[in-house]
Amino acid sequence: MEPQSQASKEKYAADISSIREARDRIKPFVHRTPVLTSESLNVLSGRKLYFKAECLQKGGAFKFRGACNAVYSLDDEQAAKGVVTHSSGNHAAALALAAKLRGISSYIVIPKNAPKCKVENVLRYGGQVIWSENTMQAREDTASRVLEETGAVLLHPFNDGRIISGQGTISLELLEQVTHLDTLVVPISGGGLITGVAIAAKSINPSLKIFAAEPSGANDSALSKAAGQIVTLPSTDTVADGLRAFLGDLTWPVVRDLVDDVIVVEDNEIIDAMKLCYEILKVAVEPSGAIGLAAVLSDRFQKHPASKDCNHIGIILSGGNVDLGVLWDSLRKP
Amino acid sequence: MEPQSQASKEKYAADISSIREARDRIKPFVHRTPVLTSESLNVLSGRKLYFKAECLQKGGAFKFRGACNAVYSLDDEQAAKGVVTHSSGNHAAALALAAKLRGISSYIVIPKNAPKCKVENVLRYGGQVIWSENTMQAREDTASRVLEETGAVLLHPFNDGRIISGQGTISLELLEQVTHLDTLVVPISGGGLITGVAIAAKSINPSLKIFAAEPSGANDSALSKAAGQIVTLPSTDTVADGLRAFLGDLTWPVVRDLVDDVIVVEDNEIIDAMKLCYEILKVAVEPSGAIGLAAVLSDRFQKHPASKDCNHIGIILSGGNVDLGVLWDSLRKP
Repeated sequence: MEPQSQASKEKYAADISSIREARDRIKPFVHRTPVLTSESLNVLSGRKLYFKAECLQKGGAFKFRGACNAVYSLDDEQAAKGVVTHSSGNHAAALALAAKLRGISSYIVIPKNAPKCKVENVLRYGGQVIWSENTMQAREDTASRVLEETGAVLLHPFNDGRIISGQGTISLELLEQVTHLDTLVVPISGGGLITGVAIAAKSINPSLKIFAAEPSGANDSALSKAAGQIVTLPSTDTVADGLRAFLGDLTWPVVRDLVDDVIVVEDNEIIDAMKLCYEILKVAVEPSGAIGLAAVLSDRFQKHPASKDCNHIGIILSGGNVDLGVLWDSLRKP
Repeated sequence: MEPQSQASKEKYAADISSIREARDRIKPFVHRTPVLTSESLNVLSGRKLYFKAECLQKGGAFKFRGACNAVYSLDDEQAAKGVVTHSSGNHAAALALAAKLRGISSYIVIPKNAPKCKVENVLRYGGQVIWSENTMQAREDTASRVLEETGAVLLHPFNDGRIISGQGTISLELLEQVTHLDTLVVPISGGGLITGVAIAAKSINPSLKIFAAEPSGANDSALSKAAGQIVTLPSTDTVADGLRAFLGDLTWPVVRDLVDDVIVVEDNEIIDAMKLCYEILKVAVEPSGAIGLAAVLSDRFQKHPASKDCNHIGIILSGGNVDLGVLWDSLRKP
């Protein structure tokens, strides 16, 4: 199959052109994040690993790429009314930051159970927080009310071509920084990240293998791939609070067509990988950010038939926003 | 004063030539660490801050630069007998790693109260651990015995021109990465880091200001500067376990002549700065590694007469080896 036909805009919500446009649009605003390597982790995994440290991105996560692309895609009239989203996580802070840079308002609907540090990030960037109950229905209702009152533009965390195109810029950078990768391992939740990454990467090099990494307590993508259609779950349970969303209608087709397989990992494996990130790579990642390393170290990957050809692996450390209060308490004298 | 006369080899244990030689010698082995920036921290400090992330160096600290330079400076005959040091910290792991790369033995005398993660690093890199009691006398006696038995070369953690020259390579990199710095803020303990950094930096740009950052519970450098001679303390008490050493006869003259002032900070300020490093910069630093940021944010610096001209500040995040067990315990389900 030809790469262009594999990932064309007729088929998907983004393509290599929209991703290249996004790169040019957001270039003045984003960090070109470094790629980290560790001999110790190479030995541990039996592969050469290249960590794209998106936890060092502005706002502490890759989400700023998509949010920035979306905010700067708006025409002046639309933008003047501001932007709105509902999110308990990194998209909220990223959108607040992008809006602040453009000098427009952002309205962020946040469920009351959101992690404290993520709410603090929204406030730090000047986002206007509107609290809602925790259910998805309550969040959507509150967002609708805000939309009506303000005329702001709703920007979905992942089911949006502009967001997907922004996230895809990671592949453009990473494949320039490390030219001999044969594999990418990418966290999956709603699918915005892996969709953008896969479209760009397979357009540049169709033989690249793309694996999704997913927690067992929110394994809807693995189930969806197995069923050949979107599957959702009645509830989720995982330490990776950033990976609880389900695929959308714009991300699913890409996950179906371009993602080679989904590696499902346990929470304990995620925490072990997080520990390695702090202790060896010295980067502060959140559980969702460490899941790519967890996947590569897991038996499911090491014994996967396709993995024998995966020797130079790019792993996306997607974000680093996590409450560490217990650590600070332990260091301070009573 | 002319830069060359300011920092000549006749005066000090290292000079810009020995530091440039060190750079060429260690280049194949060290990471060129990235420089991190954060708008949030710029706003907080009222300055532009540039963080040289030596916590991302191999072995998790700048110490690998000096150890690598020293190990690769040995002739083959010397090297064949191995190297020895006594250290509870990052120098031990760095030396073990450098010795492993050269394929020689390393004997590391470690006091029984050393942080667990630092001992693990030594073992990970194949160092041979020899335990000693905690006193400096016991450590030195044990090291002497090992020296006699093995004929290995003793490499002091800081009071050695080869070590100082290796640490100085940080300045060569940083001043290339950010060309408009007017100030450097550097942790101080035995003084190997700041000595190398100051010699190189002031040779390149004599108008650069150099501040040392020191914990109040181990403030021998501040007292030494005030007294005009080396002052030691009967004991130390600080969360920054990497900053408990006292100046040596090779580091003191440089600290005396080329360090503009010592900023003394409290442990609570160090922990606050560490929190900012994890939550905003997303790097895992140890307390000693965060002290430069603590110093810049402190009243002592902000109200310092010289600080009004410090607008573009390079801060060395010196290391990232810290026990985080309490964090992993808190994340795992009971």
